[in-house]
Amino acid sequence: MSVIYNRVALIGLGLIAGSMAHAMRRAGLAGEIVGTSRSAETRAVAAEIGLCDRITETAAEAVVGADLVVLAVPIGAMAAVAEEIGPYLAPGATVTDVGSVKREVIVQVAPFLPDTVHFVPAHPLAGTEHSGPRSGFATLFDDRYTLLTPVEGTELEATAKLRTLWEGCGARVEEMDADHHDLVLAVTSHTPHLIAYTMVGVADDLRRVTDSEVIKYSAAGFRDFTRIAASDPTMWRDIFLSNKDATLEILGRFTEELFALQRAIRTGDGDHLHAYFTRTRAIRRGIIEAGQDTDAPNFGRTTVKKELPGG
Amino acid sequence: MSVIYNRVALIGLGLIAGSMAHAMRRAGLAGEIVGTSRSAETRAVAAEIGLCDRITETAAEAVVGADLVVLAVPIGAMAAVAEEIGPYLAPGATVTDVGSVKREVIVQVAPFLPDTVHFVPAHPLAGTEHSGPRSGFATLFDDRYTLLTPVEGTELEATAKLRTLWEGCGARVEEMDADHHDLVLAVTSHTPHLIAYTMVGVADDLRRVTDSEVIKYSAAGFRDFTRIAASDPTMWRDIFLSNKDATLEILGRFTEELFALQRAIRTGDGDHLHAYFTRTRAIRRGIIEAGQDTDAPNFGRTTVKKELPGG
Repeated sequence: MSVIYNRVALIGLGLIAGSMAHAMRRAGLAGEIVGTSRSAETRAVAAEIGLCDRITETAAEAVVGADLVVLAVPIGAMAAVAEEIGPYLAPGATVTDVGSVKREVIVQVAPFLPDTVHFVPAHPLAGTEHSGPRSGFATLFDDRYTLLTPVEGTELEATAKLRTLWEGCGARVEEMDADHHDLVLAVTSHTPHLIAYTMVGVADDLRRVTDSEVIKYSAAGFRDFTRIAASDPTMWRDIFLSNKDATLEILGRFTEELFALQRAIRTGDGDHLHAYFTRTRAIRRGIIEAGQDTDAPNFGRTTVKKELPGG
Repeated sequence: MSVIYNRVALIGLGLIAGSMAHAMRRAGLAGEIVGTSRSAETRAVAAEIGLCDRITETAAEAVVGADLVVLAVPIGAMAAVAEEIGPYLAPGATVTDVGSVKREVIVQVAPFLPDTVHFVPAHPLAGTEHSGPRSGFATLFDDRYTLLTPVEGTELEATAKLRTLWEGCGARVEEMDADHHDLVLAVTSHTPHLIAYTMVGVADDLRRVTDSEVIKYSAAGFRDFTRIAASDPTMWRDIFLSNKDATLEILGRFTEELFALQRAIRTGDGDHLHAYFTRTRAIRRGIIEAGQDTDAPNFGRTTVKKELPGG
């Protein structure tokens, strides 16, 4: 694959931006990768591991001369970054982001961008429970989806070029409206995360069941929740605050269904429970057939071999 | 390791019993393994793959001369099996089970057992989303916990012998009271499963978000829920019906916390959300340090490589 952008500026150097750096290098998609972070420690780590070709102290410096600028900061920080870089953006440059909510990012960022640049919001549906500049890896986006939500009037060519970059990073790319994106993600990501956080919090709160019991006996189901509940707190706070309406709507649906199942348990309605559980099993099959997860038992977890204290 | 029981009868040949057969053979723990299942198809598959040394048509036949009898059927079927085998149990034999709820199993099974046998209920905290006679494997219990809940008056020697068997199968063994077991499992397993089933059901219900979108974009968090929501429906129906009180109590705690987070989203209380999410992150660390999960991103899933239709 050949160079798609001559200079890519990564604003923020966490899991996603770091993985983009690795993936762009793997395929030779960027002439130069410039990176910056608000945190001096993150910049130092990024420099130490050679994550980018060049690290700058400020976002304004990073974007100078860049033909692609990637906003990879928590959603709550997007407006401030956009305001800072606005005056320094090169005419004809494309600005994109990797935020998990799209309407709010458009509302926050678009007002600060000059008319001379293209704005193509994007959301790579990939991640792990880890964060920080050391957490990225080149294969993170392989066979995962990246959703583009171009705003009305965006030049088709700018969108097409960004699509080529993401495909070069290994992703499958689709386009959709920002509001639809936010609803879909409320279902497939935001509400599941809130629920996982809640369940883990409940377990932590219970005094009659000790922390140590929760941890030792987690393999019975709970540990899958803790993985998603270990994601970056700042990022997730911002997601819920900026996708409030869709999340609250899906949460309402969730509690309605949960109460129906709760009532079935209370009244001993085994047929209702059995029918419900049979239906949900089929969805798993669909995900495996679509290549979005492995069929190996327990996700193919390698057996964990560790000496327990007093085990 | 040497033979611990001369003849082990496995009643039911699903994931757990099948894995026990493999694990007992790996370590040479059983002189003979006899198996049975109510389903003729399951018996045929078990015979075909050589899962046991001998397959019988009925549970009554299977237990004759066995010094260990393992009830590995859904909880709702335990009483009928106990009634059937009661008259055929060898004096001095130990009867155990692998059910996910312990008080109700004791209530269902104990009345049918003659005074001449030992009853030591057990629960291996291990499993996958797969079921059936082909789903078992020898390493399922390695480094996982098996909980024994002996009833008052059980001979210590019978409990100790069963402990040795489970340790020989790779498990870490602990003993606790049946009621405490049921509360701990309501937190670490039963409520998480109900929540996962509910979330998957909600996603399936939404007409504005198509099935295909839910499936394609599941990597954003949802797919971890689908794994646990793919577990055996009959087994889970019985678990909820037989651990009703503890599950309803933990569900009550869960909805209380969920509503508090929901209110924080509605009112824009980012500090509350951030503090909550920071606390839950620490629990994940504890689970990894206790050797109950891998620290590899996404559980160390191998990258899924598959051609998508029209991808």
